[in-house]
Amino acid sequence: MIRVGIVGATGYGARELIRLLGLHPEVQVVAVVSESAPGKRLDEVLPAFRKSTDLVCEAFDAQALAKRCDAVFVGVPGGKSMAYGAALRGTGVRVLDLGPDFRLKDAARWQQYYKVEHQSPQLLKDAVYGLVPIHREAIRKASLVAVPGCYPITVILPLRPLLDTIASNIPVVADSISGVSGAGRSLNEAYHFPEMNENLKAYRLGVHQHIPEIEQGLDNRVMVQFTPHVAPLTRGILTTITVRIKTEVNVADRLRCYTSEPFVRVFPSGELPEVKYVRASNCCDIGWVMDQRTGNLVMVCAIDNLMGGTAGMAVQCLNLMFGLDERTGLNYGGMAP
Amino acid sequence: MIRVGIVGATGYGARELIRLLGLHPEVQVVAVVSESAPGKRLDEVLPAFRKSTDLVCEAFDAQALAKRCDAVFVGVPGGKSMAYGAALRGTGVRVLDLGPDFRLKDAARWQQYYKVEHQSPQLLKDAVYGLVPIHREAIRKASLVAVPGCYPITVILPLRPLLDTIASNIPVVADSISGVSGAGRSLNEAYHFPEMNENLKAYRLGVHQHIPEIEQGLDNRVMVQFTPHVAPLTRGILTTITVRIKTEVNVADRLRCYTSEPFVRVFPSGELPEVKYVRASNCCDIGWVMDQRTGNLVMVCAIDNLMGGTAGMAVQCLNLMFGLDERTGLNYGGMAP
Amino acid sequence: MIRVGIVGATGYGARELIRLLGLHPEVQVVAVVSESAPGKRLDEVLPAFRKSTDLVCEAFDAQALAKRCDAVFVGVPGGKSMAYGAALRGTGVRVLDLGPDFRLKDAARWQQYYKVEHQSPQLLKDAVYGLVPIHREAIRKASLVAVPGCYPITVILPLRPLLDTIASNIPVVADSISGVSGAGRSLNEAYHFPEMNENLKAYRLGVHQHIPEIEQGLDNRVMVQFTPHVAPLTRGILTTITVRIKTEVNVADRLRCYTSEPFVRVFPSGELPEVKYVRASNCCDIGWVMDQRTGNLVMVCAIDNLMGGTAGMAVQCLNLMFGLDERTGLNYGGMAP
Amino acid sequence: MIRVGIVGATGYGARELIRLLGLHPEVQVVAVVSESAPGKRLDEVLPAFRKSTDLVCEAFDAQALAKRCDAVFVGVPGGKSMAYGAALRGTGVRVLDLGPDFRLKDAARWQQYYKVEHQSPQLLKDAVYGLVPIHREAIRKASLVAVPGCYPITVILPLRPLLDTIASNIPVVADSISGVSGAGRSLNEAYHFPEMNENLKAYRLGVHQHIPEIEQGLDNRVMVQFTPHVAPLTRGILTTITVRIKTEVNVADRLRCYTSEPFVRVFPSGELPEVKYVRASNCCDIGWVMDQRTGNLVMVCAIDNLMGGTAGMAVQCLNLMFGLDERTGLNYGGMAP
Repeated sequence: MIRVGIVGATGYGARELIRLLGLHPEVQVVAVVSESAPGKRLDEVLPAFRKSTDLVCEAFDAQALAKRCDAVFVGVPGGKSMAYGAALRGTGVRVLDLGPDFRLKDAARWQQYYKVEHQSPQLLKDAVYGLVPIHREAIRKASLVAVPGCYPITVILPLRPLLDTIASNIPVVADSISGVSGAGRSLNEAYHFPEMNENLKAYRLGVHQHIPEIEQGLDNRVMVQFTPHVAPLTRGILTTITVRIKTEVNVADRLRCYTSEPFVRVFPSGELPEVKYVRASNCCDIGWVMDQRTGNLVMVCAIDNLMGGTAGMAVQCLNLMFGLDERTGLNYGGMAP
Repeated sequence: MIRVGIVGATGYGARELIRLLGLHPEVQVVAVVSESAPGKRLDEVLPAFRKSTDLVCEAFDAQALAKRCDAVFVGVPGGKSMAYGAALRGTGVRVLDLGPDFRLKDAARWQQYYKVEHQSPQLLKDAVYGLVPIHREAIRKASLVAVPGCYPITVILPLRPLLDTIASNIPVVADSISGVSGAGRSLNEAYHFPEMNENLKAYRLGVHQHIPEIEQGLDNRVMVQFTPHVAPLTRGILTTITVRIKTEVNVADRLRCYTSEPFVRVFPSGELPEVKYVRASNCCDIGWVMDQRTGNLVMVCAIDNLMGGTAGMAVQCLNLMFGLDERTGLNYGGMAP
Repeated sequence: MIRVGIVGATGYGARELIRLLGLHPEVQVVAVVSESAPGKRLDEVLPAFRKSTDLVCEAFDAQALAKRCDAVFVGVPGGKSMAYGAALRGTGVRVLDLGPDFRLKDAARWQQYYKVEHQSPQLLKDAVYGLVPIHREAIRKASLVAVPGCYPITVILPLRPLLDTIASNIPVVADSISGVSGAGRSLNEAYHFPEMNENLKAYRLGVHQHIPEIEQGLDNRVMVQFTPHVAPLTRGILTTITVRIKTEVNVADRLRCYTSEPFVRVFPSGELPEVKYVRASNCCDIGWVMDQRTGNLVMVCAIDNLMGGTAGMAVQCLNLMFGLDERTGLNYGGMAP
Repeated sequence: MIRVGIVGATGYGARELIRLLGLHPEVQVVAVVSESAPGKRLDEVLPAFRKSTDLVCEAFDAQALAKRCDAVFVGVPGGKSMAYGAALRGTGVRVLDLGPDFRLKDAARWQQYYKVEHQSPQLLKDAVYGLVPIHREAIRKASLVAVPGCYPITVILPLRPLLDTIASNIPVVADSISGVSGAGRSLNEAYHFPEMNENLKAYRLGVHQHIPEIEQGLDNRVMVQFTPHVAPLTRGILTTITVRIKTEVNVADRLRCYTSEPFVRVFPSGELPEVKYVRASNCCDIGWVMDQRTGNLVMVCAIDNLMGGTAGMAVQCLNLMFGLDERTGLNYGGMAP
C-alpha cells in the first residue's frame, strides 16, 4: 500500500484527488493538510466525503508528513507551492505538485508571467514535467513531479507529433474554452452564478501564464497565440488549434504514436471530441480536420480539467513512480451524461 | 470474477452501470445487448468508452446470455423489461431490472399507473424490491431484483423510520426536483436544450407512476401527494417532504437506524443535503427540520438519480447477491465540483 | 414625462428597472444613486448599458433627488432601505421600495424574521403593499409603495381567491424553487458557479423572512409551511402549493377574478406554468390540479423574479400612481427561448 | 402604423421578433403564418404570448398577406425561404428574410455550401444584405432584405474597418462559440439537454455554410478559417478572431467608424466583451488586443444571436425601410443578469 499525503486538501484539484484515491486499490491517503481548517474533520469541511473518510485536516509539517507518507501531493495556488515543495524535498519524500511552480525550466520566464520572483529556482532543473505520454520514463524515476497545467496538455499533446511540419514563422492559434472550475474556488464576481451562467468570455489575451508552459512543451519551436475562454459549465476544456502546415503530412500516421497510450484517444478523421466523452475520466481526446481549401490543419482536443487535466494525470504519475500499472484506479470511460 | 451482461446498454442507466463496473474489482461485463445497434462496437455507439472496452453489442438471446453470465442487468424503458425479465428467468440466470416492471406487488395498480397490462404478473411476488437498507437480507438470496425508482428512494428512506408517528389522515407532501437525465435519452421538445435550460416545471401532478411505488414502500400506511419537478441540471434529485407528526418523536434517534448503512448519510440537525454532495456517488443524504411553529416535520433527501438512484444501487444489490462486501466498487464520496 | 430616480442602481433589481425603463415611453430616469460608485458613469460600472445611457452615479441626497424626480425607486438590501425611505418621505417625493422594509404592517414580526429592529415603524401603516391585482386602488393614491417580495407573489396570488375554502387547521405547503439571481449580487461560496451549477438545495427551512409577508398577504388566516429551494438557473421562480380544501369549490370559477388582470394568466385545467413562459416578462402564471385521490388542490405558479417579481411589478405600480395605462412599457410576452 | 406579417411564426427567430414587436410603438403584427399550426391561436402554440396577442396562425397566401401587410418577415429554415420570398416578391410587398437564402450574390457558391440548387437565383442581385452599419443606405430603399447570419455579423463588423491591413496570404482564424438556440428548434440528440449540458463541442469544421457569407462580407479579400463551437447556454455568440497584420495600424482609430452606430459598441483597449453585456439586446460589442509578442491582432465580438443576430437586426432594417429612427423599439441595454 502506497501511503500518500495531500497538501491543500480543500481546493478543487485536491478534492478530486481524494475522491479518485478512494477507489485506488494500492493507495491510501494517510494525511490531509489544510491551512484553513487544521483540526477539523475533512468530511466536515467537505460533506461530499461523509462516510468515505475519517481523515482530520492538519497543519503543514514537512517532517511529520515525510515520516508517514511515501509521496505527497501539493495542491495550492500558483506561487504558494514552491515553499511547500522545497520543504518537502528536504525530507526526501517524493512530491507531486499540482500547481505551476515547478513546471518551467526558465525561472526568468516564470517570473515574467507569474509576476513574482521564483523562490526555489534550483529545483526547476530537478523537477520532471509530468506529462505522461511525453516524459513517461523520466517520471518513473522522478522525485519531484510538476503535474502539467490543464490548458497546456490540450495544446502540447495534439501538436508535438507534428512539430517538424508546422510553419514556424506563423504563430499557432490555440483557442481554448474552459469550464469554471478551472478558476478554482476563490470567490470572484465574474464567477458568481448569475454573472457567469448564460455568459461567455475571453480573458488574459496574450498574457496568460500557461503560454510559456505551452511553448516549452513544444520545445520553443513555435509561438502560440493562446486565447482562453470561459463557458458556463463546471468541468472540461475544449481546445481548437489552427496550424499552417509547411509540408504535406499524414496526420493520422503521425498521431499513431498515441495508439498504445492508455488515455490518449485519437478520433477517426471526420469525428470530433466533445467534453462529454471525457467528463470525469482521465482521457485526452484528439480529433482533426485538414482543410484543403485554406491549407490549415485544425485540431480539437478535449479533457476534463480536474481529471485528465489535474488529479487523474497526477495519479497516473504516481502509478509510474511506484511501479504500478499506470491505469490502476483510472481505468474507466467518460461519464455521459 | 462475476460475469455480467447488460441489456439495453445505450440507455442512461446502463451507461452508468458500464462506467461503474469498469472499476469494480470483482465484476467483468462480458455481454452488452442493444436492440438498436447489434454488431456495433459499444465504443462506436458511445465514444465515452473508447479505450476502456472492447465489447460488441449483440441482439438479445436469453439462453446465450445465461450461458456466459452469472447475472444480467436489464435497463430498458418501463413496459419493455418484463418480457426480457421473463425470458431470462426461464434460464435460471440472476436478473437485476433497472426499470419499473417488477417493482409493484399489485399488478392491477401497476396497470392503473403504467396504462398497459402487465404481461408477467406471476413474477411480481418473486421479485425482491432492491432498496438495500430495507430489504438487505432478501436481496442476498434474490434471483430477480427490481432496482427501485429514483424518486421513491428519496421518499421511502427518510420516512420509513417515522411511519408510526405520521398523521395517517393527512397526505404526506413530497415535492421532488429532478435533473433532466431522469427523463431518459428519448428526444422530446420539452427537453431540447433551449427549452429546458433556464426553465423549471412541474409535471404529471397526481398521476406520476412512482406514486404507487412510494406508497407501497411505506406499507400503504400513508397517502403521498407526490409532485415531481424538472430543473436545468443533468443529474440529481432533491426531495422535500412535509409531514404532520401526530406524536412527539425524536427524529435524530429514529434516523440512527441508518448509522451503519454505508451509503445513507443522515445530516446533523440544521444542516441540509445538497445535490452536489452526492453527485456521481452512491450516497443518499437526509436532513430535516422540526418546525415548532407549524408542527410539521420537513425532511430533505438528495441522491444522484443515475448512481444512488439507479446504477449504484444496482451494483450494491449485485454485491449482496454474490456475497461481496456491499461497498465494493462504490466506495467514494460525491464529485464536488 | 415622469422623471424618476433609482437608489441602489447596481443591484440586480435596479439594473432590471433601468433596462425596462429604457423602453418606457412616459418615463425618464434622471438620477441613479450608487453609494459604491459615486461619480462613475453607470455604463462604466455596468457595461451592458453602454450606448443606452449617459447617467452618472451620484451619492444619496434626498432633497436633491426630490427636486429632480417625480418618484424614486429604492433597491437596496433588506434593513437598509428604511433609512432611505424615511429620508425621501420627508421631502414629499413618491417612493417605491423594492426591498422588504415596508412590507409588513407589524414591526415586531418584521424584527422577529429580519433580526434587526425596525427604524421607522411609523411608516409601516402608510406604506401600500404593491401587489397590483389585490391593492390596485390603494396603489393609485399611494405615496410610499412596498413592492412585494418575489416568493410571496407566487403564493398569495394563487391562494387568495380560495382562502375561505382552505382547511385552516392544516398548514398550506408552499415549496418554491428559485433561480440564483434571487440571492442578489453579494458573493457567497454557495453561489460560486462551480458550487451552484448542477446543484439543488433547500434553505432557511421554517425561518425564511418571506413567511410573515406571505401569511399577511393571506390575511393571516392560514399558516404556510414555506420551503424555498435554489436551482441552477439565473431567473425565475416556480412555486408548488399543496392545500387541503374543506369544502368543494370550483377552482376555475374562483380564478376567473384574474380574467381582466393584464399580467396574471390562469392556465386551463391540465396545463401547467413553466418558467420559460414568463421569462423576462411581467406575467404571473397560475395552473392547478384538483387531486381527487388525495383530496388536495395542487397549484403551480411561475414568475420571473426580477421582472414580475420585482422591476416589472414596480413599473406597474408606477404606471398606476401616475395615471398611465398600467401595461405601459410592460406589454410583451415571455422570452422563450 | 406599419402593418407586418411573419411567416414561420413558431421558429426561434420569429418568436423573438413577435416579442420585440410587442413593444414597438410604430409596428403592428397583423398576420402570423405557421404551416404546422394553421387555425390555431398563436398563444396556444406559444403560451409565453398569452394575454399579449390574439393572433391566429394562418396558412401561407402571398396575395392575402400582401393586401394586409406593409412588410413581411420570413423566418423559416435555410432552403425553404426562397420559395416564400419569390412568391411574396411577386406581390410587391417588402420582404425581410431571416434565413440564408438571399444572402449570397453567387448562386453557385450558395449551392456548394447548402447542397441544394438555388431556386430563385435572379433574386440574389436584388436582395440587399441587411447588415445595417455597412449597407444602411441600400437598406432604406430595399424591397428584399436578407438579414445577416449570426456568426457572420461577429466576424464582418470587427474586421471590415481593418481589411487593408490584413495579410491576405494567411487565413484569418475565427473561432466562434454559440449558444444552443442557434441550432433552432428541431430535435436532435446532440441538443437533448443531458447531452449538451456540461458539454462543449466544435462542428462543421471547414464546411460551415456561413463561410462564404463571411468572406463575401469581407469582399472576398481574405480567407477565413471559421470554426464554430457550441457551449451550454441558450443565447449568445462570442467570436475570437486572430489576424496577422501586415502594416502597423491604429486599431482604435479604425474602429472609430462605429462611434455613431447606435448598437455597435467598441470597448476601450484592455476591456473585453462578454455575452452577458449584450444578452437580449441589439448590441454588437467589439474588443481587441494587439499582441506585440506574436504580431497578431486578436479581436473579440459578442452578440445575442436571436436579437442583434436575428430579430433585432431585422427590426433595425424595418425601421430604416420605413423611415423611422432606427433605434425605435430597440433602445435598451443588455439583460444582466
